[in-house]
Amino acid sequence: MIVATPELAHTLPASALKEALTRRAHEVEAALDRLLPVPPGPESRVVEAMRYAVLNGGKRLRAFLVLESAALFDGAAAESGVRAAASVEMLHAYSLVHDDLPAMDDDDLRRGKPSAHRAFDEATAILAGDALQTSAFELLADAATHPDPAARCALVLALARAVGADGMVGGQMIDMASEGRALTAEQVGRLHALKTGRLIQYSAEAGGILGAATPAQQEALASYGRDLGAAFQIVDDILDTEGTAEELGKTAGKDAAAGKATFVAVLGIEGAKREAQALADRAKAALSVFGGRAAILTALVDYVLARRS
Amino acid sequence: MIVATPELAHTLPASALKEALTRRAHEVEAALDRLLPVPPGPESRVVEAMRYAVLNGGKRLRAFLVLESAALFDGAAAESGVRAAASVEMLHAYSLVHDDLPAMDDDDLRRGKPSAHRAFDEATAILAGDALQTSAFELLADAATHPDPAARCALVLALARAVGADGMVGGQMIDMASEGRALTAEQVGRLHALKTGRLIQYSAEAGGILGAATPAQQEALASYGRDLGAAFQIVDDILDTEGTAEELGKTAGKDAAAGKATFVAVLGIEGAKREAQALADRAKAALSVFGGRAAILTALVDYVLARRS
Repeated sequence: MIVATPELAHTLPASALKEALTRRAHEVEAALDRLLPVPPGPESRVVEAMRYAVLNGGKRLRAFLVLESAALFDGAAAESGVRAAASVEMLHAYSLVHDDLPAMDDDDLRRGKPSAHRAFDEATAILAGDALQTSAFELLADAATHPDPAARCALVLALARAVGADGMVGGQMIDMASEGRALTAEQVGRLHALKTGRLIQYSAEAGGILGAATPAQQEALASYGRDLGAAFQIVDDILDTEGTAEELGKTAGKDAAAGKATFVAVLGIEGAKREAQALADRAKAALSVFGGRAAILTALVDYVLARRS
Repeated sequence: MIVATPELAHTLPASALKEALTRRAHEVEAALDRLLPVPPGPESRVVEAMRYAVLNGGKRLRAFLVLESAALFDGAAAESGVRAAASVEMLHAYSLVHDDLPAMDDDDLRRGKPSAHRAFDEATAILAGDALQTSAFELLADAATHPDPAARCALVLALARAVGADGMVGGQMIDMASEGRALTAEQVGRLHALKTGRLIQYSAEAGGILGAATPAQQEALASYGRDLGAAFQIVDDILDTEGTAEELGKTAGKDAAAGKATFVAVLGIEGAKREAQALADRAKAALSVFGGRAAILTALVDYVLARRS
């Protein structure tokens, strides 16, 4: 959809990125399957719902960011990365399950399948979302995730700050409160920075925490994640306007019809594309401190801009 | 309601316990107020709902357990205790907000006031519950809670295990799945051990983690918390049968009418009282390793048995 700026283009072929995305998604899917065994008692129903929500064949963008950011550093153990990656996917799945509830966005479909409260029931979906959030923190705090408890606490703290009332949930609240109201471009930017940006930014930062990044490296990852997250959301808004239901696996034009605040509404399609491109360029520039090691993270920016679903 | 067994009675007068409960409740209320400042943006609504749910003048039993268990040890700093105590009250408040939702227990009243989804709306209540859970973990992971990151990770992990699908949420799932079905005494015991017992047990254990308890001391606190939690729930069931709406601040007989699994249903009133007394005796006995230092925790057992609301 949007072509990468030639002077910032890098040499990693698109097929290599796709291969890496597929491989990482399989790693995370296997970890999630392993980390959520179904217990024998009647409480198994909530675990079945958690598994239904999280083992959904998603793109695993957030997990990929954790793993590839961690891979910039020599110190990070593979097992740490995959557990932290599984954790952020649990957290993301919790947010989708609760977002889809009748009292929230009232969505019957998620990635072309019945949403959790349709596949199970509303009470089970509320509980499954709750428990996915709990499991995300449990995973991070466990000694198996990192030998250094200070790193584990830093992960818990960074995730909590990204998703609480000052982060993702704050963004969801603004989103609900803004339905049908005209927002300025700045207000839409802040809404999405909180609602989707903070968790994407956290994912990049988590890799730095796992790898014991220097403060400058950590700041670069935060900046990369922030701009990538903003670009991701603008592309989402463009797809909601231009995409088809078949491509999206959900109803196209739904956000606009619901009076949701979108970048396309405030910037227009062309303005939104220009803004996404500017953010993408800045995200790539932030990676310069890592030199050639960041080829995959750089290629990911183009992938996010070019995605059709 | 139930008189303490004379040979296990201790010398702390009931007025001293009441004074301690009131003082601790004020400490925790002040900490919660301080820890949940209302932000300026439109996301303030979710924070208002969080404050509404948690600053409710509750008895603060869980916070009291954290603080008084921590007070058994010389090493625990007061600030650590009050932050961990505020954290468990946030977690407890999240569970009540989600429990009261229309899709769950559909309760319009909580402690004589409109429940969160009635005072705000359903979407805001879902988000406020979500963010209260997040804030509980955020508080524990923060360096201000304890100088040792290993202790902070241990708190996060213990809390997560107490409330996830293997703990409180698992218990809620069993509770929903069991409505209208006859359970055995053992099944009711397990349901409540998960649903309410695990968080009460965690509260006692948290004090031990803060105070760097020995393994034997930690096991004693776990055992005390487990039995106290079970006794607490049986008293709850007895009150639901015998109490008045005025005393309870909620509809009496509601659980039984909803076909919920209660101890009274499986043991009868007298059997339930005997069981509560046996658990209380065992809870007190577990404290013997602490000698006279545990007078308040011992007195708390009698208080829990004698409560009328």
